[in-house]
Amino acid sequence: MTESFDFELPKVVSSISQRGCRRVLLQFPEGLKRHAPEVASELSEKVPGCQVIVSGEPCFGACDVPQTDADLVVNFGHLPIPSVETPMPVLFIQARSSADPVPAVENALSVLPERVGVVTTAQHLHTLPTIIDLLENNKRLVRVGQGDGRIFSSGQVLGCNTSVARSISGEVEKFLFVGTGMFHPLAVALATGKDVVVADPVTGEVGDVSELKDNVLRQRHALIETAKAARRFGVLLSTRVGQRREQVALGVAKALRSHGKGAVVVESDTVTPEKLETFGLDCWVSTACPRLAIDDQAIFAKPVITPVELEIALGIRPWKEYVIDEIFAF
Amino acid sequence: MTESFDFELPKVVSSISQRGCRRVLLQFPEGLKRHAPEVASELSEKVPGCQVIVSGEPCFGACDVPQTDADLVVNFGHLPIPSVETPMPVLFIQARSSADPVPAVENALSVLPERVGVVTTAQHLHTLPTIIDLLENNKRLVRVGQGDGRIFSSGQVLGCNTSVARSISGEVEKFLFVGTGMFHPLAVALATGKDVVVADPVTGEVGDVSELKDNVLRQRHALIETAKAARRFGVLLSTRVGQRREQVALGVAKALRSHGKGAVVVESDTVTPEKLETFGLDCWVSTACPRLAIDDQAIFAKPVITPVELEIALGIRPWKEYVIDEIFAF
Repeated sequence: MTESFDFELPKVVSSISQRGCRRVLLQFPEGLKRHAPEVASELSEKVPGCQVIVSGEPCFGACDVPQTDADLVVNFGHLPIPSVETPMPVLFIQARSSADPVPAVENALSVLPERVGVVTTAQHLHTLPTIIDLLENNKRLVRVGQGDGRIFSSGQVLGCNTSVARSISGEVEKFLFVGTGMFHPLAVALATGKDVVVADPVTGEVGDVSELKDNVLRQRHALIETAKAARRFGVLLSTRVGQRREQVALGVAKALRSHGKGAVVVESDTVTPEKLETFGLDCWVSTACPRLAIDDQAIFAKPVITPVELEIALGIRPWKEYVIDEIFAF
Repeated sequence: MTESFDFELPKVVSSISQRGCRRVLLQFPEGLKRHAPEVASELSEKVPGCQVIVSGEPCFGACDVPQTDADLVVNFGHLPIPSVETPMPVLFIQARSSADPVPAVENALSVLPERVGVVTTAQHLHTLPTIIDLLENNKRLVRVGQGDGRIFSSGQVLGCNTSVARSISGEVEKFLFVGTGMFHPLAVALATGKDVVVADPVTGEVGDVSELKDNVLRQRHALIETAKAARRFGVLLSTRVGQRREQVALGVAKALRSHGKGAVVVESDTVTPEKLETFGLDCWVSTACPRLAIDDQAIFAKPVITPVELEIALGIRPWKEYVIDEIFAF
């Protein structure tokens, strides 16, 4: 099926006009960037007094508010993070997907137990009532969790925060994730220990993350073992307003030094292998986006571990207390 | 030979102490980043009340002043750009190279004419008196040019500005470039039309750029031809304070639209192929660092041309008036 997205241009135009903006900066996540030229062009025509500039930087979430001299940032594809104060006005347009979740959820029914927790992402949140109806009509007891202060909407899961799932984990047998990609359901599986059924509304396909979860845990174990032997560490600190965990980074550097390791705090926007490799260090501890260490490990030449994984490597925390890195409301 | 660099730590320490800085951000160009952990560690010990953080972003010049909440930025490897007002205090440490230019310049003597213009980069500027003495002792008439407001020191050439060479081009037969890499001498050759002899003080080797210059001009010609057929253009605007040519970018977009082409202005920090490819456009016009279009063409999937090259593609400027893109003092 073809998936389209609602960029809500009338809402954007009226917001630009009401604010009397002279310059706006548009942000798109990678998967939506191919629509940027058309969106920018249409907006330019409708608000001729306003310069429309598109950000060319990768944008992975509402955590990324650029420093800019525009009057307004329009962030397509995400919902606000309530606990993050943005340094400037940002209009969030969640870019609702046109994909119908019904076929995928119907396909998932055969593997869903009686008590199900439902989680999804910004693009599909508007279909949550439909999903719940369908499940309840098929005799499921449905739970939808409330998130912490980092979460805009009940049922919404972020790559960095699974609080909606954790809040109801004791009440459900399995989770149903409606959306695309494996990271969000993997995060839920690692955070709750429950099975997660994945229903992709774009392809209609159903999957699960248990094998991926086992592989990831084995890989994390191996990386922690490698990190034990490392001498010279980099501590990654994000420059992005919603990912900047400065106290965590400084704490990590202090812990490393007190264990006789070298530690340099390196701040960066988007983290790429090239940016890390030039420093020639043995190991990195990332306090930036929690996705980074897990999703991108394969592209990095050196181990990139989380603060919790460093605690295990340093012997401060036992492996059985392993938890996935999350950014909680702060 | 082994090249080392003078990071002038006593000067950095006294500057941090005098200003009472609580946080400093260190910037290093790619070639010096491997020294960052040691420099950061030594500074941390000498100014224990101050947090020392290293920037993980690429830094190609004094044009790149990060937005940061540090009290002071220390930029290693570059001299200030006088015409660029930095939004915050920056201490520039040029990182003088220990390489002795004498063997390389002696090797170059056989290909140097009577009247020579000498240009070099920040790392080697302190050796200019030695180079001039050597040349004059060998019966050369030496000229060293004054730059425009973008240039800190006479004889200094930037990747984006060859005004020191252009200012004396009429008085010399050839230029001598003392330094490493081909971009700076290539820029001088393209901007002045004169031969440039390259003397590398690190290897002692001597080269010239005439063949490279011919290849680059042929490539630029071919890219301009390709650009003529393009319909959907991206116009690159740098977010870096010393590379941001906003009026140029807006003028380019306007010219494109008046010629019936699509144009979207995209702003970015470091420009990488991935950042451009996601937009799915036919051609890019870069108003960011002039090096980008020339140096990095091979890594981009689509043509990246300069504003002058676009004028040729649109038929506004004849090919015989081709000039290399430069950022003048503004």
